[in-house]
Amino acid sequence: MSDGCLKDDVSEQRCKRLKIDNENGNNLNDNQLELKDFVLEKILNNNTNRKTACVVGKFKDKSGVALILFEKNAFKENDLSEEGYFSKETQLKTFFENDIYGNFECFPPSTINGVKTTIIYPATDKHIAKFSQQEVHIVLETPELYKELTLPHLEKEQFNLQWVYNILEGKSEQDRIVHDNKSEKEGFVLLPDLKWDGLTKETLYLLAIVRQRDIKSLRDLDEQHLPLLKRIRDEGKKTILEKYQVPGSQLRIYLHYQPSFYHLHIHFTYLRHEAPGIYAEKSHLLDTVIDNITMMPDYYKKATLPFTIREMDSIFNIYETNGQVKRIQNANLIVK
Amino acid sequence: MSDGCLKDDVSEQRCKRLKIDNENGNNLNDNQLELKDFVLEKILNNNTNRKTACVVGKFKDKSGVALILFEKNAFKENDLSEEGYFSKETQLKTFFENDIYGNFECFPPSTINGVKTTIIYPATDKHIAKFSQQEVHIVLETPELYKELTLPHLEKEQFNLQWVYNILEGKSEQDRIVHDNKSEKEGFVLLPDLKWDGLTKETLYLLAIVRQRDIKSLRDLDEQHLPLLKRIRDEGKKTILEKYQVPGSQLRIYLHYQPSFYHLHIHFTYLRHEAPGIYAEKSHLLDTVIDNITMMPDYYKKATLPFTIREMDSIFNIYETNGQVKRIQNANLIVK
Repeated sequence: MSDGCLKDDVSEQRCKRLKIDNENGNNLNDNQLELKDFVLEKILNNNTNRKTACVVGKFKDKSGVALILFEKNAFKENDLSEEGYFSKETQLKTFFENDIYGNFECFPPSTINGVKTTIIYPATDKHIAKFSQQEVHIVLETPELYKELTLPHLEKEQFNLQWVYNILEGKSEQDRIVHDNKSEKEGFVLLPDLKWDGLTKETLYLLAIVRQRDIKSLRDLDEQHLPLLKRIRDEGKKTILEKYQVPGSQLRIYLHYQPSFYHLHIHFTYLRHEAPGIYAEKSHLLDTVIDNITMMPDYYKKATLPFTIREMDSIFNIYETNGQVKRIQNANLIVK
Repeated sequence: MSDGCLKDDVSEQRCKRLKIDNENGNNLNDNQLELKDFVLEKILNNNTNRKTACVVGKFKDKSGVALILFEKNAFKENDLSEEGYFSKETQLKTFFENDIYGNFECFPPSTINGVKTTIIYPATDKHIAKFSQQEVHIVLETPELYKELTLPHLEKEQFNLQWVYNILEGKSEQDRIVHDNKSEKEGFVLLPDLKWDGLTKETLYLLAIVRQRDIKSLRDLDEQHLPLLKRIRDEGKKTILEKYQVPGSQLRIYLHYQPSFYHLHIHFTYLRHEAPGIYAEKSHLLDTVIDNITMMPDYYKKATLPFTIREMDSIFNIYETNGQVKRIQNANLIVK
C-alpha cells in the first residue's frame, strides 16, 4: 500500500474534528496510545510473504475503532554485525541439521527487534475495507467508462487532500522534503514515502507531489504536461543521485492507476525493491507515459486503461451494476 | 526459498567428504556453531520485500566458508495477543504523527522475536553464486537501439528453441496441453507453466505459445497480429474458466519484454499471485498491447520500450559500451 493509501479516504468531517482536538491539545502527542491498551477484535490480513499483518480493535477507555498495521523490518546492514545478529547476546535454537545444512531460529538482541507499526485512529469503515483481504478483479476502463462511471464516482467521493496541501503549503512534514521546485506550473515537492526509513538503499522510496492542483491522475495528462513530467523525472533523478548515490538507471519511476489519491504524484523506488503495487496492471513507468504522449498527445484520453478493484471497493458495485465485472461466488483454493 | 534450493548444487565430492567427517564424529552436532563466532565477509543478498538476507563469512577457528540465510518470521496469530505484541513488555517508539496516522516502531517481548536462520557450512562457490545479488538497471530501448544493439545480439546468440518446436510438433509435453488451436496463422498451444503445480488457484500460471515461428517478441507485433492476439486472450480465458473455474477478470495476461526466449508467448497468471517478473518495467498486459496497436498500428515499431538488465548479462556489455548504462562501482546498502 502506498503512502497515500493510508490517507486517501479521510472524511472531511474527521479532519475537522481532529483539527479541533488538536487545538484543544487533545491530539496523539498529549494522549499517547499504548499497545498494551489495545483490545484485538479481528486479524484483517496476514501476508506471510511480506511479513505484514493488519488488525482491528479498540483502545481501552477510548471511543472509536483503531487499525494497527505491523510490518517486520527488512534487514539493516548495520545489524548484520558483531553488535547485532553476531553478538554474544544472540541465542540460537536448533530445529534440525542435515549434512552441511542446519536450520535454526535465532533470537538477536532486543534493540534490533523493532517492528514497523502504523496506527490509524480513529479509523473509518473505509480504512477497514482497505486493509481487509478480498477478491480482486481487473476492469478495462475505456474513455467512455471513465466518464460515465469512474469520474462521477471520484467526484462524489471527494477524497480529502488536506494532508497533501499541508505539505505543499509548508504546514507539515517540511523537514522531510528533499527537493522543492516552487514553480507554479512545473513545480513539485519530493519527499521520502512513509514506508521508507530514509536510509536503506534497498527500500528507497520517494514521492513527487506536483504543485498544480487540477491534475487528478494519468487520465488528465496530455502534451501540455510534458515539461512538468520531464522536470520531475530529471530533477528527481538528479536529487536522488546526489543525496542517496543511487543512479537513475536503478530507479523505477512510475504512476499508479488508479492512484490512491487524486492529486498527481509520482513514485520513485529502488529498482530491486519489490514495492507494493509495482505490477503491470497498476503501475505505468513515467518514461513510457512521456513516450506515449510524445507519440500521441491524446493517448491518455483515448486509451483503455486496466485497473484492479476489490469486491469491497465502492466502485466495484458501480462496475458490477454496469455489467463490467462479476462477483466471485465460491472461492476455492484448489482449482480441480 | 524452498528447502530444495539449498541442496541442488552440492557436489558429489563435498557430500562424500562430509560423510567421512560425520563418521569421524566431526559433524555439526558435536561441534555446535555459534553466531557470535561468525566473522562477516560480505552481504550477498538483502530482499527487503520478503525480509530475507544472506551473508557469507567464516567461523572463528574453523576452516572453510559459511553461508547464513536469515528470514524474518511471518506473524503468528498467537503472537497478536496480550501475551505478544499487546503485552505490557512491548515498547512503542514514535517516528511521527500526522492527522489520524501515527508511525511507530514497536519492540515486542524477546520470546517472539525469533528469526529463521539457515547455516550452510562448509559452503561451495556454487552456493555463494546462487545466493549473490546482481546489480540491475533499466535501459530505454528506442527503435534505433533495438535495431543497432538488441537485434544483432539476439541473432548472434541464436537462442535454441527446439524445446518450443517439440511442443508445437507434438513431440513433447503433449499430456500437459490444456488447449490446442491448430490454425497456422492464429493457432497456439496453452499449457501449465513449469512453475505451477497445476492445482493451487493462488499460484495459477499457464503459458500460450503461438504456432507462427517468425514473431520474436512484442517488438514484431502490428495490426496483422490483432486476430491472433485476441484469439489467444479469448480462448485462453474460456479454457481457464472451464478447466480451473477462474474467471478472466481474475487473470493477469501479459508479455515479457525482454522475454526469456524469442518465440512469441503469453503468460496467464492468477491476479493475486505475485509471480516473478510481473513488474511494470518487465510486463505488458495483453489488453494494453491490443489497445496500443488498435490506436496506432505501428506502436511497437515506434515506441521506446524499457527493459531491465543485470550487469552479468552479455547484453549489458553492449549497452555499456554504447554509453547507455553505467556499471555500479561501489554498492553500499546505506544511502547516507
